[in-house]
Amino acid sequence: MQSRGKLYVVGIGPGSTDLLTIKALNALKDSEYILGHKTYIKRIYDLVKDKKVIESGMGREVERVRMAVKLAEESRVSLISGGDPSIYGILPLVIEYVSRNNIDVDVEAIPGVTASCAASSLLGSAISGDHAVISLSDLLIPWKKIEKRLLHALKGDFVVVIYNPSSRRRKSNLIRAMEIIREHRGDAMIGIVKNAYREGEMVLFKRVSEIIQCPEVVDMSTILIVPNSETIIDDGRMISPRGYGNKYNF
Amino acid sequence: MQSRGKLYVVGIGPGSTDLLTIKALNALKDSEYILGHKTYIKRIYDLVKDKKVIESGMGREVERVRMAVKLAEESRVSLISGGDPSIYGILPLVIEYVSRNNIDVDVEAIPGVTASCAASSLLGSAISGDHAVISLSDLLIPWKKIEKRLLHALKGDFVVVIYNPSSRRRKSNLIRAMEIIREHRGDAMIGIVKNAYREGEMVLFKRVSEIIQCPEVVDMSTILIVPNSETIIDDGRMISPRGYGNKYNF
Repeated sequence: MQSRGKLYVVGIGPGSTDLLTIKALNALKDSEYILGHKTYIKRIYDLVKDKKVIESGMGREVERVRMAVKLAEESRVSLISGGDPSIYGILPLVIEYVSRNNIDVDVEAIPGVTASCAASSLLGSAISGDHAVISLSDLLIPWKKIEKRLLHALKGDFVVVIYNPSSRRRKSNLIRAMEIIREHRGDAMIGIVKNAYREGEMVLFKRVSEIIQCPEVVDMSTILIVPNSETIIDDGRMISPRGYGNKYNF
Repeated sequence: MQSRGKLYVVGIGPGSTDLLTIKALNALKDSEYILGHKTYIKRIYDLVKDKKVIESGMGREVERVRMAVKLAEESRVSLISGGDPSIYGILPLVIEYVSRNNIDVDVEAIPGVTASCAASSLLGSAISGDHAVISLSDLLIPWKKIEKRLLHALKGDFVVVIYNPSSRRRKSNLIRAMEIIREHRGDAMIGIVKNAYREGEMVLFKRVSEIIQCPEVVDMSTILIVPNSETIIDDGRMISPRGYGNKYNF
């Protein structure tokens, strides 16, 4: 039986509420219930304080999805995700959950601005084209697989965007990743963006060796951008040219 | 001398105007001039028809950037880009242009929803985590480099998102890419999204061999999502699980 309710899975973007899409804003307004990790609820709280707000902590993803799906049988519900809901967000779990359990709930995913786009523009234009996106968190994926991906991304001369580079309990993955990067890119300058478009925003550059010596510069709220062979740093901006300079004079 | 004007480089998202961010909308409202490729101007025309609108065609990127930068010496200007302005957008050229010519113009990039996020959510949750993004257009990048990247993306077991898969004059890159994919993923099912969130939106699945036999199914307005080894297609949805199923029962 098709549920009478609706489940929006809403990407709220990287930080400030003006990086929400209009569609995301409309979904929040249309919802009776708002569910999400407490960090994300905090960001949009002013927009949803008149709603039934249910927040939860890390590691409660399955519980959160179960509750959102249950509520969406009868009600209009927004389950929120930082950035874009696909990219390391809650959407894959929602889709997997309803698919495995044959639940017929009306799900509408609303894409958002993912952290790589936010970080790229804050650094200058650090991405610009072909790139690989990798998370260093091995909570759900074996480290060997992550290492293999990083290796191929470097061999393919991709700009590499690193999500979840480090956590309080986990610094060794970051250091190992930097060692692999040093083997393939030398002591390259890495673009670092912390808390993009929110309180505590910081944009800086550090060499691979500096990150290895001082991994504390990087935490869970940081995005790293690893240059490809053409990336340059000029006047405080990281630029991965798109080849226009080879084709045109300007 | 710091210019008195301002240049916004605005990502307008994949299609419908409700996938603009509030920040993008505010930048457009704040601008006296709006510049962009005619396809993108058309999408937002209703929002900017009271402005000085300057549209141009393909291959006029350098001219468009030069004009936008010049106007931004005195005026508030929005230069618009589809999706996100970094990812195959106009931002890298803007930054390269002002950097090479030492132009001191106030540039603010506004990130947007890139096509990979849009396509992923329309297919189910086709991405979900680590992924590689590649354009098959060899206008600015040699084909050998593109082929090498595709190869490494496949060897790294990334979900691969393909932008600009084909054009009227160029079908051979698509066929060659599909042959490489077949060598590494077999006759896999490819997620195909055309005109995401705009007129003519279409979501479908085709096997690699079907695309080789009938490349007309793919054009410049299409995004392809190539599965990784864990991606499944279930009930019309493409899902790349994030490993929750290995860790939790649900």
